[in-house]
Amino acid sequence: MIFVSGQIFVDPSNGGMLKGDIKEEGGLYQAMNIEQVNTPAFLVDLSKVTRNTQRMFDRARRLNVRLRPHVKTHKTAEVARLQIGAGSAAITVSTLAEAWFFQSAGFDDITYAYPITPQKLPEAAELTRAMRYFHIVLDNPETFAAVHSFGRAHGIRFSAFIKVDCGYHRAGVDPEKAESITLAKQLHDSEAVEFAGILTHAGHSYRCRNRSEILEVATQERAVMVRFAGLLEENGVACPTVSVGSTPTAVHAESWEGVSEIRPGNYVFFDKFQADIGSCSLDDCAATVLTRVIGHYPDRSQLIIDAGALALSKDPGAIHIHNTVIFGAVLGNPQLKIVSLSQEHGVVESEVPIPFEEHPIGNLLRIIPNHSCLAAALFPKYYVVEEENVVDEWSPVRGW
Amino acid sequence: MIFVSGQIFVDPSNGGMLKGDIKEEGGLYQAMNIEQVNTPAFLVDLSKVTRNTQRMFDRARRLNVRLRPHVKTHKTAEVARLQIGAGSAAITVSTLAEAWFFQSAGFDDITYAYPITPQKLPEAAELTRAMRYFHIVLDNPETFAAVHSFGRAHGIRFSAFIKVDCGYHRAGVDPEKAESITLAKQLHDSEAVEFAGILTHAGHSYRCRNRSEILEVATQERAVMVRFAGLLEENGVACPTVSVGSTPTAVHAESWEGVSEIRPGNYVFFDKFQADIGSCSLDDCAATVLTRVIGHYPDRSQLIIDAGALALSKDPGAIHIHNTVIFGAVLGNPQLKIVSLSQEHGVVESEVPIPFEEHPIGNLLRIIPNHSCLAAALFPKYYVVEEENVVDEWSPVRGW
Repeated sequence: MIFVSGQIFVDPSNGGMLKGDIKEEGGLYQAMNIEQVNTPAFLVDLSKVTRNTQRMFDRARRLNVRLRPHVKTHKTAEVARLQIGAGSAAITVSTLAEAWFFQSAGFDDITYAYPITPQKLPEAAELTRAMRYFHIVLDNPETFAAVHSFGRAHGIRFSAFIKVDCGYHRAGVDPEKAESITLAKQLHDSEAVEFAGILTHAGHSYRCRNRSEILEVATQERAVMVRFAGLLEENGVACPTVSVGSTPTAVHAESWEGVSEIRPGNYVFFDKFQADIGSCSLDDCAATVLTRVIGHYPDRSQLIIDAGALALSKDPGAIHIHNTVIFGAVLGNPQLKIVSLSQEHGVVESEVPIPFEEHPIGNLLRIIPNHSCLAAALFPKYYVVEEENVVDEWSPVRGW
Repeated sequence: MIFVSGQIFVDPSNGGMLKGDIKEEGGLYQAMNIEQVNTPAFLVDLSKVTRNTQRMFDRARRLNVRLRPHVKTHKTAEVARLQIGAGSAAITVSTLAEAWFFQSAGFDDITYAYPITPQKLPEAAELTRAMRYFHIVLDNPETFAAVHSFGRAHGIRFSAFIKVDCGYHRAGVDPEKAESITLAKQLHDSEAVEFAGILTHAGHSYRCRNRSEILEVATQERAVMVRFAGLLEENGVACPTVSVGSTPTAVHAESWEGVSEIRPGNYVFFDKFQADIGSCSLDDCAATVLTRVIGHYPDRSQLIIDAGALALSKDPGAIHIHNTVIFGAVLGNPQLKIVSLSQEHGVVESEVPIPFEEHPIGNLLRIIPNHSCLAAALFPKYYVVEEENVVDEWSPVRGW
């Protein structure tokens, strides 16, 4: 059975693959055991990523909110298809390179959830022409003026969100300021703009330490946005979409009343950081870096592995909780700690004496990275695994 | 004039380009101003990288030591050609992917300066067959046993170095232990191995704070290696090559007497870290990340730029000197500090009030990254600049 979702045909029996891209049953991929994989390598556990995406569908459905998943964590067509499932084919991207990549993979409702700058308008115009819906984001009058005059000059009507600061204090307008309403009015009244609505990212949820702190942020995120949408309505600016999203708040929020859509992204893989702040369990983490033991140094109780900063990234993890930098979690070996990284080496220590005989040279280890978005971005391809079998390879888009 | 260096023809009048790869005068590259470049982007200043490579030639010549430059910082054929100049075409790599890439670019004397593991031996054997000299590195009897038996079984004679720990304490044998001499004897006596010599990396030079501390490490690096080579000779093991190298020690060492070759790599680009520890000045840094201002937040005295963790990496820089994490140096704007990074955003603060009018939205900034090796690895291509003109694009190899 083929469902029609927007202009895209989606087959829910096939993990949300788009029509025309469906692989043959059994496919041509030569399955192998992870023992045959060159290290370091990035592994995606198919059953876990499927479970994570399914749980987010269920949450969104239960809370009656649209899911417009972010694809910046994985940047692959395959995971994006799992994220949309049989639902809407709408996604969120962080770069123009992602926008083009997913456009060519058949996605045609894309929010570029990143502050647009004047230099990017010609490309944004091309993307607007190339797909059904392409939405841009801005948060200041200078950029609005550039969008307005570019649109007029080139006969383009940009669909544009106003980015709102709901407490993260990175980008976005202050929703309590009169000038933020003025900016919304300008978008609303511009012939070169379709006012798409308001959008926020509750990035301060990443400073939380547990579920209850995350819940507070989620409540604030919703409250700030619903209040600002109301202010706009009172001022004669209809707000078609109220868009929120961060993985921690999307995982725990108890209500999205008044919110139109959520845009979580990291939840597909999760990571050590998300487990530490309480977004998930370590068992939910779907992405691991496969590495091998390459040296034994019993005199200083250390192992060396072939996952360095170019495999794990130097993301320090949840230092606001641990006050110390450990680079990820070694699957099944909680006593092993990756204490430092150079370009291609990781140094592993242990709280208890390392049983070197259990970790011979060449032995495989799997690391849950601190930050899966940054680790994934270091790999030209991902190995898709079921248990210890590699069943496919997926290629992410890179660049900007 | 064409010089013959090994089997490779090198034209020194052309920046060390290999014959057959020399571009036409004037070339086909459509030069542009950096204002036309999409951001974030990785820029390589051609005159600075040329000057840095020239200075390292001069140092090596003056100290009468062979230069076998490491290519892991840039991973491009073009910079490697600048590094070898009219000299030997010998280079050092950190991954098998680099080995294949540079082999296909005409380099045929490559040291894979990374602990080999049994799983990589089939590929190492192929590389040994594919080029004139391919050298592997090991530091323990288990790996030697695997190399020996693989070589015997497949009729391969591996050229192998013993990695020595000269004080960094990451990988390498302890040169004061009798078992290290035993290992060298095993390599020397194996029919499957050509004992290439001893090799070290003085990575502890990165813990230094100034030139005099680096000089101490360089003196120790040389002393440890010369002493160990002497011990081997006394024990009947001739040591054909004594190989050392780290950019800080290569830049400052006053003698390499008894050392055959040095393997610095980072010196081609340098970075904020190298400037902080005294390896170079900020003006020597040849690699910058080009970024644009994408937001003004005067209420909290912040700018946002479009260089985040996927452009600069999360390398914290010389925290052993500064005790604080600042992500790189903003060229020409020393008062601007990048205080935090998320995936695609950098948050910039200033010690003095930010003159926002000097940094309008869309304004270009150039960041000297903390760690050029890690930043370079995040970009699919580099823009080569002379002043503010882009004159070429270079593509690095990725993966393992």
